[in-house]
Amino acid sequence: MNEDLRICFIGDSFVQGIGDPEYRGWVGRVLAASGPGITAFNLGIRRNTSTDVLRRCWREVEPRILPDTDNRLVISFGSNDAVVEDGNVRVDRAHCLDNLAELLAESRKRAIHPLVIGPPPVIDGGAEHLRRTVELADDMAELCGSREVPFIATTRQLAEDPIWTREAGAGDGAHPGSGGYQRLAELILDGGWHSWIAQPTA
Amino acid sequence: MNEDLRICFIGDSFVQGIGDPEYRGWVGRVLAASGPGITAFNLGIRRNTSTDVLRRCWREVEPRILPDTDNRLVISFGSNDAVVEDGNVRVDRAHCLDNLAELLAESRKRAIHPLVIGPPPVIDGGAEHLRRTVELADDMAELCGSREVPFIATTRQLAEDPIWTREAGAGDGAHPGSGGYQRLAELILDGGWHSWIAQPTA
Repeated sequence: MNEDLRICFIGDSFVQGIGDPEYRGWVGRVLAASGPGITAFNLGIRRNTSTDVLRRCWREVEPRILPDTDNRLVISFGSNDAVVEDGNVRVDRAHCLDNLAELLAESRKRAIHPLVIGPPPVIDGGAEHLRRTVELADDMAELCGSREVPFIATTRQLAEDPIWTREAGAGDGAHPGSGGYQRLAELILDGGWHSWIAQPTA
Repeated sequence: MNEDLRICFIGDSFVQGIGDPEYRGWVGRVLAASGPGITAFNLGIRRNTSTDVLRRCWREVEPRILPDTDNRLVISFGSNDAVVEDGNVRVDRAHCLDNLAELLAESRKRAIHPLVIGPPPVIDGGAEHLRRTVELADDMAELCGSREVPFIATTRQLAEDPIWTREAGAGDGAHPGSGGYQRLAELILDGGWHSWIAQPTA
């Protein structure tokens, strides 16, 4: 791991860790498993779509990065984009992908190395929401692949995970408790996290 | 506790929890001790002075609050203000108090209920830095008192705390590890936190 690693995590309620009575979420668990000394910022906001994230990203990331430092950005959204409100999805798939492409292009311009975490499922969103989220996640993976940006899939894995689904069902229907966030943290840690933080960026 | 409590924590590296290998800091510990269901946002940034906090506060808090919700703001700074750089303190006492007064006035205008946490000591900052930080903390307490805003003192208590001083000394000279953050969380929990989050705000 680099000496002075600064990571901003930006996204939605899953990034924020809503529902975790330990207030650690997957972000806190992934950091604790990465060893001490990382300067980390959790910029998750519940109900945020990709459009919301794009609107505030650089305004919030800029005061948190430093020149001549290994600055990173972990991006995760999509679950809220795929929610239907007033008869329409909040942000359609093409628009969400445009938002992601713009974030990745801007990251490159600023020499901030990105990692994208796929959208977790919303358990009480039903089969149609899951189908949309899986399709979106697959397209996000493809877009990241074309930009040589690592992507870690979570949607199918968590939709089939007994701990995640049980905790989300016992909670507000979307957010798990500590066990579900631990599962998501494991998916991320096993999905390429360690090689991403170890990669030289100079 | 209110049903839909949203708390933004804004401040410096101590708010951020720098040095804690568990990545929970005092903010995570205070939240976990408060029970589940709080929507919390950690907006600590290391090296931030009161002037830095004032500059970004509303830009970052606005997207995180909701109308018709019990919105709160926990403010903590001062340790960096009192640091000498290039022969001068980074932000002098009068200016820091002006910044705090403006934050409290703006909070009131927005119906966001504030709580102020006094600045922790910087152990390797020496006797002069501690003297300045204690004086600043006392003035912050007085200002808060005049505005009927709760203030929780930490400076003297942590400067004399064996766990805090040992961990900070073994670390980077300023930031403790898990034990020190636990001590700070206890000072806050025992210093009025529970009655503050329980207080009716309508």
